[in-house]
Amino acid sequence: MSDSSGTPTPSPAPPVPSGPPPKVTNRGRTAVPIASANSDTTEVPEFEPFGAPGPRGFPPLTEFLDIVDVDMMRMPNEINKTQHHTTFYNSDSLIVRRGQEFQVKITFNRPYKPASDKFAVEFVIGSTPQYSKGTYIPVFPTQERQSSWAGRITNTSENTVTMGITPTPDCIVGKYYMYVAVVTPFGIRRTRKDDSRNLYILFNPWASADAVFLDDETERQECVMNEMGIIYHGAYDDIAERDWNYGQFNYGVLDACLYIMDKAAMPITNRGDPIKVTRKASAMLNSHDDEGVLVGNWTGDYTYGVAPTSWTGSTEILLSYATSKMPVCYAQCWVYAAVFNTFLRCLGIPSRVVTNYYSAHDNDGNLKTDIILHDNGRIDRNRTKDSIWNYHCWNECYMSRPDLPAGFGGWQVVDATPQETSDGMYRCGPASVQAIKHGQMCYPFDAAFVFAEVNSDVVFYSRSKEGTMEPVKVNQTHVGRMVLTKAPGDVTRRDITDQYKFPEGSKEERTVLEKAEEFGCQREKSNPPDADVDLVLPTLEVTVGNDFELSLEFINRSDQRRVVDIYISGSVVYYTGVTSTEFLFSDPTVTIGPNKSVKEVVVVESKNYMKHLVEQANLNFIATGKVKETGQIVTAMKVVTLHNPKLSVELSGGARVSEEMMATVEFTNPFTFGLEGVYIRMEGPGLMMPKSKYYSLIPAGSTLTWTEYFSPLRAGSTRVMVTLDCPALRQVRGQASVTIQP
Amino acid sequence: MSDSSGTPTPSPAPPVPSGPPPKVTNRGRTAVPIASANSDTTEVPEFEPFGAPGPRGFPPLTEFLDIVDVDMMRMPNEINKTQHHTTFYNSDSLIVRRGQEFQVKITFNRPYKPASDKFAVEFVIGSTPQYSKGTYIPVFPTQERQSSWAGRITNTSENTVTMGITPTPDCIVGKYYMYVAVVTPFGIRRTRKDDSRNLYILFNPWASADAVFLDDETERQECVMNEMGIIYHGAYDDIAERDWNYGQFNYGVLDACLYIMDKAAMPITNRGDPIKVTRKASAMLNSHDDEGVLVGNWTGDYTYGVAPTSWTGSTEILLSYATSKMPVCYAQCWVYAAVFNTFLRCLGIPSRVVTNYYSAHDNDGNLKTDIILHDNGRIDRNRTKDSIWNYHCWNECYMSRPDLPAGFGGWQVVDATPQETSDGMYRCGPASVQAIKHGQMCYPFDAAFVFAEVNSDVVFYSRSKEGTMEPVKVNQTHVGRMVLTKAPGDVTRRDITDQYKFPEGSKEERTVLEKAEEFGCQREKSNPPDADVDLVLPTLEVTVGNDFELSLEFINRSDQRRVVDIYISGSVVYYTGVTSTEFLFSDPTVTIGPNKSVKEVVVVESKNYMKHLVEQANLNFIATGKVKETGQIVTAMKVVTLHNPKLSVELSGGARVSEEMMATVEFTNPFTFGLEGVYIRMEGPGLMMPKSKYYSLIPAGSTLTWTEYFSPLRAGSTRVMVTLDCPALRQVRGQASVTIQP
Repeated sequence: MSDSSGTPTPSPAPPVPSGPPPKVTNRGRTAVPIASANSDTTEVPEFEPFGAPGPRGFPPLTEFLDIVDVDMMRMPNEINKTQHHTTFYNSDSLIVRRGQEFQVKITFNRPYKPASDKFAVEFVIGSTPQYSKGTYIPVFPTQERQSSWAGRITNTSENTVTMGITPTPDCIVGKYYMYVAVVTPFGIRRTRKDDSRNLYILFNPWASADAVFLDDETERQECVMNEMGIIYHGAYDDIAERDWNYGQFNYGVLDACLYIMDKAAMPITNRGDPIKVTRKASAMLNSHDDEGVLVGNWTGDYTYGVAPTSWTGSTEILLSYATSKMPVCYAQCWVYAAVFNTFLRCLGIPSRVVTNYYSAHDNDGNLKTDIILHDNGRIDRNRTKDSIWNYHCWNECYMSRPDLPAGFGGWQVVDATPQETSDGMYRCGPASVQAIKHGQMCYPFDAAFVFAEVNSDVVFYSRSKEGTMEPVKVNQTHVGRMVLTKAPGDVTRRDITDQYKFPEGSKEERTVLEKAEEFGCQREKSNPPDADVDLVLPTLEVTVGNDFELSLEFINRSDQRRVVDIYISGSVVYYTGVTSTEFLFSDPTVTIGPNKSVKEVVVVESKNYMKHLVEQANLNFIATGKVKETGQIVTAMKVVTLHNPKLSVELSGGARVSEEMMATVEFTNPFTFGLEGVYIRMEGPGLMMPKSKYYSLIPAGSTLTWTEYFSPLRAGSTRVMVTLDCPALRQVRGQASVTIQP
Repeated sequence: MSDSSGTPTPSPAPPVPSGPPPKVTNRGRTAVPIASANSDTTEVPEFEPFGAPGPRGFPPLTEFLDIVDVDMMRMPNEINKTQHHTTFYNSDSLIVRRGQEFQVKITFNRPYKPASDKFAVEFVIGSTPQYSKGTYIPVFPTQERQSSWAGRITNTSENTVTMGITPTPDCIVGKYYMYVAVVTPFGIRRTRKDDSRNLYILFNPWASADAVFLDDETERQECVMNEMGIIYHGAYDDIAERDWNYGQFNYGVLDACLYIMDKAAMPITNRGDPIKVTRKASAMLNSHDDEGVLVGNWTGDYTYGVAPTSWTGSTEILLSYATSKMPVCYAQCWVYAAVFNTFLRCLGIPSRVVTNYYSAHDNDGNLKTDIILHDNGRIDRNRTKDSIWNYHCWNECYMSRPDLPAGFGGWQVVDATPQETSDGMYRCGPASVQAIKHGQMCYPFDAAFVFAEVNSDVVFYSRSKEGTMEPVKVNQTHVGRMVLTKAPGDVTRRDITDQYKFPEGSKEERTVLEKAEEFGCQREKSNPPDADVDLVLPTLEVTVGNDFELSLEFINRSDQRRVVDIYISGSVVYYTGVTSTEFLFSDPTVTIGPNKSVKEVVVVESKNYMKHLVEQANLNFIATGKVKETGQIVTAMKVVTLHNPKLSVELSGGARVSEEMMATVEFTNPFTFGLEGVYIRMEGPGLMMPKSKYYSLIPAGSTLTWTEYFSPLRAGSTRVMVTLDCPALRQVRGQASVTIQP
């Protein structure tokens, strides 16, 4: 019972502060914080006593084994880096690959006695290291006491012991701290922390037990070791190339790649799994959600950063991100793919950039891209909102897939370009290329999305005045017309379309599309009859600023005369297929005799398109119409990528390591107007770090010359790559090859 | 050639502004912005002309069909809401379920002439509506012109037509705007936008073609219609219950659920797919990454918000989030699961909250939880960093899985509690319960993670002085001891462990674990022999503040005497298994005769644990030790959840709809100290919205009484739920049942 004075009475509740909620700690949630930064370190005690000290403390330990020196054998020409294919990394630290032995020299104060002396080499990564998590690894020199990483004495000479250490082939990838611990009767004593003993461990495509093992030396040399890339763009029938310096061995790039995972707060324990590493990186390479590396921008306005077309390589981007800790401006798909490629090759995951021509996007992973026509056959631009990208670049990386049934290892698609309508997050993959080819879309990650990028149908709908819609034509061959990548060990291209799709029209292709439907991909079911009039648009190669003729060929396959009301529309488009301006429209009526063909020529004048051009100078021609006699729909689409003027690049000098050379870039403004705000960028793998120059104006017809001196760092065949970029003229490129003698 | 005056010279580059990059638009990236907010609207023109007007404009349209009135038949007792099971929603708008016909009455200015009059009912959702995306749906009254949604005239009476409309069973779920459009010879004219004609469409578990179809009326009544939840906690052998008011029908809750998807910028076109909706929501229910609904806090310090143990239902949380647009403080697992349940039931996806006892966490989806022992057998608290949650709550939701092979539909696990080490993002599921049971971890999403929560082994390692670690005991039955959910249509519990796992020790269980290993789950391979001494800890039910005895039973199964050095440790733990304070330690030596058993009793005094208690008052006892004769390791673990005092709740009054009633809450402080900063919360489905009261002090021994008046909203059996919560005493609960007469 309570007396009245003790009876509680309600009071007004204390005010709860407004504003963002305070940061909550992990107390009560986990025993220790999840280690999620490679840059975090733990203080490892220099002396760890066994039990409490006696009344006079511990006796001096001078009589026991002591460490005088540790030599990581980390010079580029020493056995570790040559055997581990890490000589090219511009780094003072030891860099090795997992699942393969490396050597460390330890010098004691006296000869090592295997029978009585006990020591261990310890590796530690991240905060709160734990043996069972693989973040604390003691390595013992004897067979009797073994840890997860094997250790053995490979050489003994006076007071010095050389120890061979083999990290497990699935160990965590990143930067480890190294200690040597000696067991004395009173406790364990350790070397002090010393940054010269840091150890970087990478994935190992040369080790058969590593998940990224790739059993082909030519492929490994290309997909891990090659810095010099070619990325394809343009149109499938008029292919253009971009040179790119991946720069994975440049000073600071490896640390920048590890920083990306730290910035993502990726748990250290997940960093040995290439599936998790690549999935995380596909999210982190773009700035959406997570303050990742690159800001996407397709607007044409790059005032506050670097135009996507201006970059020559990944180094500048990665170093800028690691330094500023802010997303770098700006990227489009090939920039995402190229920087992702650097990340993957730098960490040792075999990877390549691929280009898919006519890539379907923004259609929810369904297998339809819609084009809406008025009932007279003319395209209804207000209602046509899907776009097909002229091309799209993504990455493939090579790894086994123990999380999937057998048969889905090998090349995996990952894509860092933010996809607005994918599974809600701005990341994609790894998706098994085998699974995509066979329509096995039930396996993670995002196979259905990539499948749609290469397999969508283009569906033409006719819309009546009252709003009813009727599919009138289905084009099943336009999307995913060709998939290209650079050939290994060569500067040519390789058509890998057959790795994504069975041949058009084959039985297997039909089976795969049915499979895809079983997994919920919606296709257009109706199959409107083909028109008996074909319309073909020619392949054109046109230099920017030129007039040209577009010749439409109508082929009548029927035995009757056909009259076609055709609507020809020419637009300047972004490479995403999004229309900027329609600059040409024509609606002739064409009459074709039975089994005859007729050509209709449209003249395209540069004065009409020049002032509307957006970057990458793509013109998109769509012709749609109706056959009068039958009401059948006739369509054709063609993208013309205008060719830009080239930069001239010349190299002179000895072409020997450390001998000064000279690169001369020359460009003449071919236009009748001045070019303003011009950036020129130049770099070359093993030759020079990225350099840039700014010109406020290049007057009409005038020539600029830029000469740069440099000293090659290493021997081998390489290239200098140069871009010129300004708001009025994007992606002017030039390059010069050279073989450097030792 | 250029003359010297025209030669460009490099200038300093213009400064690039620092700071965060500017917001980039989607120009060039997509033709139209992706519609990702249900709250966005489009202006639909009231008149859409066919071609240009004549010189005198359009003629007056008075002679054509015109709309006088539209009646959505949206009252709770009208046919639409009763047939669509939406009567309980406290909303003025029409709410229906997809795949099922609803009726709309349209009154014209004259009788409708089917042969000549053309009109359509149009539904629009989000910005940039498109027919092909399902965001613009015209519905026609005749069989000849059909759209994706079927329409028919069900009744005609003078100038009024009743139209039956059937949304497709896969249509987008959310809020649509409705228009009626009439075709005149000069163009289309439309009704004006009018919010009273808004239409909410939900998932439909009653429609066999809907992906969430659930063919069991009892389950549907429980998992869609029931607001009154019971969530299990405590320990598997001493189960405790939490009442929870899901409140999915309360005013504003449906709009709050749609707001969550808007806040996530989830593309409108994905909102008809229960897989995508539940996956997105599992990310959005927690505030990590995305400013989602609830901030997780396990620290015990809830000064800046509401303690997780204090909530009585979801309504207050959801309405606060939708109003403030800021994450709500604070949640632990059952709060995430309960609010997620409200979201799912509110949208029409069948769902239930389940509780897994001894849930393995933070172990990277691997099948091991590590406990490290010193070489004498005592637990090494510094090196033991994994924890096993006493229990963990998640949700199951019911749906077909067209994205997976046949057989994996049905119940799916989704979990909104942020998992630090899952696939890098704070979301989980939907993972097929069938796939988890059969070890088919290759199917999305996150099946491997849930599998580990119910199947991990507890591995005891012995650590030598030099740092080598050796597994000495593997407990394969501790984790995932029991999975419970509320029985449908009843207030009892239902053991659904067999839906997650085959019986312990069965052949199927072994096969499943082998399957899991194939998919990359690491298990402890070594199988140390079982000790021939068993140690059993008793099941205890203890009221907080009481002293009690813990009796350890040692059973010697050998024919020899056994001496065991045992270390008994008692700790106050969070429900996450994380240790707060060790309050008891004892290290007796126990001698057991051949084939005998011996009891060792430890007295636990409340004065030792009381001052250390953290919320949920869990004590964790671990006994570990070594058999002297054999070196075998003996272990036992037991969680004791102390029982709190109860609140008394009494209801009085007529127990009829709209008749005033009274709820009286009484609580006596049983402790010798005052309770400070006390919140009491009360609510009841169909009875009252959430109410709370604050008491700055309840002196020792004193009694508080709180009386609240309310008027029941609807008939049926329901409950009033009350919690009392203060920093010194968490989760005191009380409830009173009542059946309201109409």
